[in-house]
Amino acid sequence: MARHRRYTVMLYLLMSITISAARAQSLLGFGGTRADEERALERKFDAFLNKDDQKMWMHRMSAQPHHIGSAFDKENLEYVASLFRSWGFQTSIETFYVLFPTPKVRTLELLEPAKFAVARGEPEVEGDTTSRLVSEELPLYNAYSPDGDVRGELVYVNYGVPADYDELQELGVDVKGKIVIARYGGSWRGIKPKVAAEHGAVGCIIYSDPRDDGYFEGDVYPKGAFRNNEGGQRGSVLDMPVYSGDPLTPGIGATKDARRLPRDSVTVIPKIPVLPISYHDALPLLQAMSGPVAPEPWRGALPITYHCGAGPALVHLKVQSSWDLVPIYDVIAKIQGSTYPDEWVIRGNHEDAWVFGAGDPLSGLVGLLAEAQAVGKLAGQGWKPKRTMVYCVWDGEEEGLFGSTEWVETHFDELRQKAALYVNTDGSGRGFLGVAGSHTLQRFVSQVARDVRDPEYGVSVFDRLRARMIDTAPPEELESLRARPDLPIGALGSGSDYTPFLQHLGIAALNVGYGGEDGGGSYHSAYDSYDYYVRFGDPTFSYEVALAQTTGRMMLRCADADILPFEFTDFTETVKKYVSDVVKLADNMRNETHETNRRIEEHTLLWNADPTKTFVVPAEKAPVPFLNFAPLQNALATLEDRTQELRGAFDSAGAAPSKDTAEKLDLLLKDFEHSLTLAGGLPGRPWYVHEIYAPGRYTGYGVKTLPAIREAIELREWGEADNEIGVVSNVLTQSNELLAQIHALVSGNPFRPNTSPGDR
Amino acid sequence: MARHRRYTVMLYLLMSITISAARAQSLLGFGGTRADEERALERKFDAFLNKDDQKMWMHRMSAQPHHIGSAFDKENLEYVASLFRSWGFQTSIETFYVLFPTPKVRTLELLEPAKFAVARGEPEVEGDTTSRLVSEELPLYNAYSPDGDVRGELVYVNYGVPADYDELQELGVDVKGKIVIARYGGSWRGIKPKVAAEHGAVGCIIYSDPRDDGYFEGDVYPKGAFRNNEGGQRGSVLDMPVYSGDPLTPGIGATKDARRLPRDSVTVIPKIPVLPISYHDALPLLQAMSGPVAPEPWRGALPITYHCGAGPALVHLKVQSSWDLVPIYDVIAKIQGSTYPDEWVIRGNHEDAWVFGAGDPLSGLVGLLAEAQAVGKLAGQGWKPKRTMVYCVWDGEEEGLFGSTEWVETHFDELRQKAALYVNTDGSGRGFLGVAGSHTLQRFVSQVARDVRDPEYGVSVFDRLRARMIDTAPPEELESLRARPDLPIGALGSGSDYTPFLQHLGIAALNVGYGGEDGGGSYHSAYDSYDYYVRFGDPTFSYEVALAQTTGRMMLRCADADILPFEFTDFTETVKKYVSDVVKLADNMRNETHETNRRIEEHTLLWNADPTKTFVVPAEKAPVPFLNFAPLQNALATLEDRTQELRGAFDSAGAAPSKDTAEKLDLLLKDFEHSLTLAGGLPGRPWYVHEIYAPGRYTGYGVKTLPAIREAIELREWGEADNEIGVVSNVLTQSNELLAQIHALVSGNPFRPNTSPGDR
Repeated sequence: MARHRRYTVMLYLLMSITISAARAQSLLGFGGTRADEERALERKFDAFLNKDDQKMWMHRMSAQPHHIGSAFDKENLEYVASLFRSWGFQTSIETFYVLFPTPKVRTLELLEPAKFAVARGEPEVEGDTTSRLVSEELPLYNAYSPDGDVRGELVYVNYGVPADYDELQELGVDVKGKIVIARYGGSWRGIKPKVAAEHGAVGCIIYSDPRDDGYFEGDVYPKGAFRNNEGGQRGSVLDMPVYSGDPLTPGIGATKDARRLPRDSVTVIPKIPVLPISYHDALPLLQAMSGPVAPEPWRGALPITYHCGAGPALVHLKVQSSWDLVPIYDVIAKIQGSTYPDEWVIRGNHEDAWVFGAGDPLSGLVGLLAEAQAVGKLAGQGWKPKRTMVYCVWDGEEEGLFGSTEWVETHFDELRQKAALYVNTDGSGRGFLGVAGSHTLQRFVSQVARDVRDPEYGVSVFDRLRARMIDTAPPEELESLRARPDLPIGALGSGSDYTPFLQHLGIAALNVGYGGEDGGGSYHSAYDSYDYYVRFGDPTFSYEVALAQTTGRMMLRCADADILPFEFTDFTETVKKYVSDVVKLADNMRNETHETNRRIEEHTLLWNADPTKTFVVPAEKAPVPFLNFAPLQNALATLEDRTQELRGAFDSAGAAPSKDTAEKLDLLLKDFEHSLTLAGGLPGRPWYVHEIYAPGRYTGYGVKTLPAIREAIELREWGEADNEIGVVSNVLTQSNELLAQIHALVSGNPFRPNTSPGDR
Repeated sequence: MARHRRYTVMLYLLMSITISAARAQSLLGFGGTRADEERALERKFDAFLNKDDQKMWMHRMSAQPHHIGSAFDKENLEYVASLFRSWGFQTSIETFYVLFPTPKVRTLELLEPAKFAVARGEPEVEGDTTSRLVSEELPLYNAYSPDGDVRGELVYVNYGVPADYDELQELGVDVKGKIVIARYGGSWRGIKPKVAAEHGAVGCIIYSDPRDDGYFEGDVYPKGAFRNNEGGQRGSVLDMPVYSGDPLTPGIGATKDARRLPRDSVTVIPKIPVLPISYHDALPLLQAMSGPVAPEPWRGALPITYHCGAGPALVHLKVQSSWDLVPIYDVIAKIQGSTYPDEWVIRGNHEDAWVFGAGDPLSGLVGLLAEAQAVGKLAGQGWKPKRTMVYCVWDGEEEGLFGSTEWVETHFDELRQKAALYVNTDGSGRGFLGVAGSHTLQRFVSQVARDVRDPEYGVSVFDRLRARMIDTAPPEELESLRARPDLPIGALGSGSDYTPFLQHLGIAALNVGYGGEDGGGSYHSAYDSYDYYVRFGDPTFSYEVALAQTTGRMMLRCADADILPFEFTDFTETVKKYVSDVVKLADNMRNETHETNRRIEEHTLLWNADPTKTFVVPAEKAPVPFLNFAPLQNALATLEDRTQELRGAFDSAGAAPSKDTAEKLDLLLKDFEHSLTLAGGLPGRPWYVHEIYAPGRYTGYGVKTLPAIREAIELREWGEADNEIGVVSNVLTQSNELLAQIHALVSGNPFRPNTSPGDR
């Protein structure tokens, strides 16, 4: 009892949240004067950050193309490893072997009504030193396009998402046997050939429209930052929402001797050949099309009338790759924790790039390196983190998060035991702090953001982000946004190396970067160069330092805190919103279905159509039933109660925890994220186990929250939706039990699990 | 008493509204079997409509340019007069003399950074016979641009409306001493030089951006219907929202000996030279600009990055005109009414065009002619209208509604006595019925629309329009839209010949046309030709017939009804919405001002801005006070009561009115529109006397409802707003008195005026 009382007093100090200015000095997870000590450490840390080093590293590592399989990629990673060693980290390089296609043939030609062959793209431009290394670059291609040789009439499919095909159907345009041309944007690129193939297309061209990515947005490179006429976007088209990592070794590490799937049984490789092109090359193709004029939102910024086709433009598309097994190299560098060596706080950024990758990924990587160098220097002065800090530099991210995924899959059991959280960065630039991730860390993130100074205005990056959020919020959200002590963070879908940690391993993760004032169009192009970055990315490198200050604080605070800085009220508030979202989604679909059916019956759709143009009245859809959301709402109600109870217990708690208790508490706190997972995974994609956040099956990078429920509703699978509501409710019940355990530990009460989903 | 009882029984039949299918045979204003007789007459009328005549007339009258002052304009009008005479109308031509500038010099050249001189525009195109008559056409120019010779750096001002200049100020761009380039759209063209001059610009270029009017919308002429590279838009830039008609004779007829203003004292002529150009000519100008990238909504569809300037593009603009007094010719043709010869039902369409004008105005005119021919044939068979039918073919509409305005001004007193309503048409095409005008005629319009068959689907044009309205309505308005027996009609601003009738004379007016499926970009260009119209306007001329059926029914029913077919519940419902709109406008401005001031104070706007770009934080604005809307709300409440009472009286009314009573009732009914006017007119523009509808001072054609109140609020003139609320309330009180008189006449009760605005 006495122990408990002392322990809870301390917890009050540890866990209470700094809302008012008067309490601005306290820190989540730190007791007594420990927050002041931590801040003193951070001031030392800041002093070790050096933007000249960052510039030098970026300049050096972006000197040549460093995609996987290239000599320079390996050289960079060995260089990074040598840096970590020099800073005192226990450093190793782990090698995996992954499938990697590089283009042998990439032919796209317009056959009718006039001949035109697409160019290679991305020639040397003035003032960009590395752009002259054209022969060493991977050309414009979509890695993992299957080999194919097809010809067909063109159909323009806008962004190529499922709704676009519904519109095409109304326009009487069918893509069966045709080659679709889709513009980048609106979804992750891999969705485009996937949906095209599902509708019977035989090939897929993806181009960068200047409306979304070119002169419409601003002056083009090298005059300005935006994508020029001949620029293009490379990228993988593996169906990442099914699983990430090497396509031949789903769920297991792609070690040398791993059991590999035969390539033809791999489900994440698209079914039809796909090739990305520049808008220079897209123009003659689109110009040669006829058929219905594209719906207004489909029209881009090329100086033409956009038509849907099919044809008369007839094209020939041939893609052939060399399908090789290539080694990738992850650099793993550790500083051992002094108190809790088996609690790992993990940080990562990838190194591999499509070409020179100054922005993506090196702008993030040099932040990580500056941070690690400073941590190394602190350790050199005798400081030790309580928990083990693990710095990871991933290879093979661009192909499908290979380095991170294979490492997580290889060390799955150990990581399940030890990993407390993962902090990811990737490309970063100038402007506003952007953070997305586990909402149990939302308050922690705001505390960090309050302590980092914006280089441009000298206020906190929190204040700047708050200003942006206020400026872009819908009016009805303004008051609550102004009133809240912390700022909402986004949810994570996919698109960088947090995915295997958050959605496969089930640990809390954050993705961090700066941006919003570095707009441009160098993404996945040969112009994502050092020369570009120092003009348009972060010319003064002051945001590179701010990035290191931000993620450095996250790492140091997590490594050093008395207990891990998770907090649950924000999580509960967020889940409540997600539940309300899926209920609304079903309600809206019900209303819309009813309304559309009514318009079909009363001929409104028909009589609104111009009879001289093709308009196929859509078929009526079955009415949307009412779903039984009660189990979910009951589980949520319990979650709210548990969160409140826990908050109360922390607020009224007493003394500091013993090391043993703190360790137990950490274990429960870090396992909270895992309690949100289900071993069997999401429907149709067992690799993804998180029931709150997942990339969308038809959005790709874009997140779907409560994915199993939401996607069942979106796909009108009502039985599955009802079933998944039950599944997710059970998962939340499992989380509620964990919260009860934490509560018991905090309040000293015996643990009394209550698992009834209907219990409030 | 007895007389009253008989009279009211009849009124029940006359005035009750045909809502249900079961009562589909009754007609507003017609009693007993009179509706059946009227419909039988309309069937005869329909049989006399002949699309071949319409085609022939259009072909003939569009053979050469027929702007005012041209020989062919006069020839057309004399031809039209001869047609009317041949159909048995009492026909006269009235001549007025108006100021009309035609270009002597129109120079626009880019001086820096490269030389470029704008072309003449609109060359001959294949398949368009009249397009070869280039030397006979008026070139691209804005009539009533003052003479001027200026040079200056270019500033791109988007549509050139006041809000655009607020944005430029935030971007740190000043137009003082500069030449602005604005795109067509977003407001009536005359607003652009007016606002530019108010901000200190020295010249104004207006161009057609392909985003709004060109290839973005569809294939361009002659391949498709949209404005091509070298096409342009002529048009007057007289400040029509101040007064319409000849600029030298405001308020009085421009007869030969009229007292004329000296040209330099005319306020409606812009202050700076202005010239319209094609997008072919705009491209090099816009391309040569630098400065801040234009805000996203400002960007058009040219293949460039849109910059605001100022400069470095430097241009020279010189406009010089021959300012002549030219004669214009109105054709006025009458068929005398048999019963009420001094009640005039007036119909009009203009004949003059900028060039060939097949669409604008001949597509409307041939509807009017077919209608008049059929009316003439009915009369030739012995039928006589009860009221006098007046058909007017106006000259000089394009310059500023000259023909109609001068006629109304010349015959003001007679028209005040006799004119019952005015039905206008102008360009018309294929698609949906469009009607705007006095809401006392809304129910009448729906009855007509139910009786005209849509040529494409064979359903009523009412059903097609209803389908369109349902398809485009915001979800929250769907149920009320479906439930209502009639369809809402729009309010009239300006832009065609209804303006002098509705807003200066104060009689009920309608503007009628078909469109929505004839989209294109021939407006005010040399390609608005017969060849264009038969391909893209209304190829089968079936909507030309439908137009004649529609306006013909309106004219015949008004001319023949036992009493005029006005109805007040729709009017009251509409005014109620306008009152709620202005209250909301003030509330929204109050909230927005408060919010913006708050963002300025809390630095949100500043911290959201990229400090490497110019951003001038706007000054705080004085808070928006609460206005006293009570007088308006009380007057509205009385209006609602009066309308209900009147409705009740009609519903419970008995017998048919005597000729004498009907005449008295007609007089009151037609005077209702006039009761909505104020002799002193709107603030700053005494010519406009209507207190419910007016063109906006800063929108031009676009309507402002309750204009005196609305514009005072928009301009933040709070004292004036409060004052105008009182003024408009008094006007509504005056209308309420008239309704009381009508009620007394209908119910047989003695007239008891109650003028207290607070009375409910």
